[in-house]
Amino acid sequence: MKGIVNFTPGPAQLYFTVEDHVRAAFKEGIPSLSHRTGEFEIISKRATVGVKELLGIPSDFHVFFTSSATEIWERSIQNLVANKSLHFVNGAFSKKYFEIAVQLGKSPKKIEAPAGFGFSMDIPAEEGVELIALTHNETSTGVSLPMNFINQFRDQFPDALIAVDAVSSLPYPQFDFSKIDSLFFSVQKGFGLPAGLGVWIVNDRCIAKSEELLSKGLSIGSYHNLPSLLQYGKKNQTPETPNVVGIYLLGKVVDDFLRRGIHIIRKETEYKAAILYKALSSNGLTSPFVADPAHQSKTVIVAQSGEHTENIAKHLAAEGLQAGEGYGDKKVSQLRFANFPAHSKEQFEKLVDELEKIK
Amino acid sequence: MKGIVNFTPGPAQLYFTVEDHVRAAFKEGIPSLSHRTGEFEIISKRATVGVKELLGIPSDFHVFFTSSATEIWERSIQNLVANKSLHFVNGAFSKKYFEIAVQLGKSPKKIEAPAGFGFSMDIPAEEGVELIALTHNETSTGVSLPMNFINQFRDQFPDALIAVDAVSSLPYPQFDFSKIDSLFFSVQKGFGLPAGLGVWIVNDRCIAKSEELLSKGLSIGSYHNLPSLLQYGKKNQTPETPNVVGIYLLGKVVDDFLRRGIHIIRKETEYKAAILYKALSSNGLTSPFVADPAHQSKTVIVAQSGEHTENIAKHLAAEGLQAGEGYGDKKVSQLRFANFPAHSKEQFEKLVDELEKIK
Repeated sequence: MKGIVNFTPGPAQLYFTVEDHVRAAFKEGIPSLSHRTGEFEIISKRATVGVKELLGIPSDFHVFFTSSATEIWERSIQNLVANKSLHFVNGAFSKKYFEIAVQLGKSPKKIEAPAGFGFSMDIPAEEGVELIALTHNETSTGVSLPMNFINQFRDQFPDALIAVDAVSSLPYPQFDFSKIDSLFFSVQKGFGLPAGLGVWIVNDRCIAKSEELLSKGLSIGSYHNLPSLLQYGKKNQTPETPNVVGIYLLGKVVDDFLRRGIHIIRKETEYKAAILYKALSSNGLTSPFVADPAHQSKTVIVAQSGEHTENIAKHLAAEGLQAGEGYGDKKVSQLRFANFPAHSKEQFEKLVDELEKIK
Repeated sequence: MKGIVNFTPGPAQLYFTVEDHVRAAFKEGIPSLSHRTGEFEIISKRATVGVKELLGIPSDFHVFFTSSATEIWERSIQNLVANKSLHFVNGAFSKKYFEIAVQLGKSPKKIEAPAGFGFSMDIPAEEGVELIALTHNETSTGVSLPMNFINQFRDQFPDALIAVDAVSSLPYPQFDFSKIDSLFFSVQKGFGLPAGLGVWIVNDRCIAKSEELLSKGLSIGSYHNLPSLLQYGKKNQTPETPNVVGIYLLGKVVDDFLRRGIHIIRKETEYKAAILYKALSSNGLTSPFVADPAHQSKTVIVAQSGEHTENIAKHLAAEGLQAGEGYGDKKVSQLRFANFPAHSKEQFEKLVDELEKIK
């Protein structure tokens, strides 16, 4: 597996420091460290403070740990919605978020866009919306929501909470935290870590909403409801025995990102995206699946490769470059390329060179 | 941390092969392996088949992965109880299982025993019980339920499902699977693995009950409800991106246990427990907190050490033996000793020698 550059959007290429951090973790006894010790609290605090620093999160937001972003879909509906959430659905993952609301017995609404497309800026009026559920980066199709799209909801829906799934875009995007109430991701994508940890960021409006639902007698779950996460989070602990090594590794990689500089990570992400989109447009065999540049994801780049899909994947594999498969029934006609901090400029330049060689 | 024997009941001493398995995992690319690949399915199947073989689980039971045993407390109540569960509470962890049922809006009943004691064999009649919730090994106090206690419920409550929390006792106990319907554990105790994975074993009666609740319009959760776990489990997959490395490591350690032989692990556990209980009774400074041998846990052994607690812990620490603290307010008056497969006979012999030296 070593020596191969993995462009699958996730679980994705590990960040290059992870293996060393794992070795250090064993040396320090982290894999058997109790989550009720001061040592764990320091590790946990380092991860949450680091995430806040890296992403520019204001101090009135809380950072909690779950086991996956899938869990956060469930917990966010449970804790933030009595009845009605409004979902923007343009692919498999935004659709799953909607479906979880249905499964939890809520009455969600959805606004849909076809695969590969974003949404119109004109949002129809909708009464009684408690939560706006936005998928910043639809991993299945490579569509990203522009920031001005996300930032418009506060004015139109002042009473609603605004939740952003940024699973496959963070740490790249810079969100305006005055315009959103909740943000979440899982660590096995842009953070280049082994899977098994989700990070849920919420402000006090979210806490208040969960307490309101609880006081009305609604079930908001148990150990991972927001009041419980907050109670333990204040002590830099978790309600359950968590993925301690995962939290340790997150703190370490976030420190690595901070040392590298988020500004540089963002600039490099944009450079790598620009050269790949250009290559996909110009090589004659592929085109970007997302045609509108305003909706093209910088972090999950999808190539419409049609009948050339298999050949391209084989050619790249022979050069040690593993393209991600298209999602679902697009397996035979698309390729996906993650553009995460774990992917270097040199690796992207090689990828682009190889794409241009294929005839 | 290396060179110290950790007797804390969990997260506990790692099994001695774990670090090598982690190294191998990195070599094989497991930390960035997609959970939708055939390679993952093989790894996942190896872990579930191995667990079944190790614990003697019949073929009509299913083995599912969650993020923790705490999660299984929640999922088991959600999926198996419309209204009434009956909990046997004799410590902090059995109490939490009960409290989760309350939080989920059910009407659970409890039968309580004081800390350090088991339950009477005479169970009062109770109508409408859907789930009997048993904590095989109460980690906070070192009380274990005898097998004949567990096995009596099927006759008295033929319509109820019987769920056994065996978090801090497995792989030691041999359960009679005709007498129980669900069993669960987390990997950071007896399996000697890093925390972040729970294992939930259920039979078809449990699946049927969850489907019945669903058909009646009750919420049984979303991605981790039993029908969803079963749907993905049939393909040796999980609904969400799981702790892939954790599942890989579980399969590897279970293979190690199988090679060593469960019979030998059980015999050694009994030997180690016997010499430690004897030492606790005979050294003049301590006594077993659980007085009745029928209720003394073989895997979490609690010493009543009173005013000598700090001295004993210090003496042991100077010899590289880290005793577990007493639970909660017993921190100052008790010590806990995990007796897991990761603890060798020689380590227990040294522990016993040192306990006998303290005057």
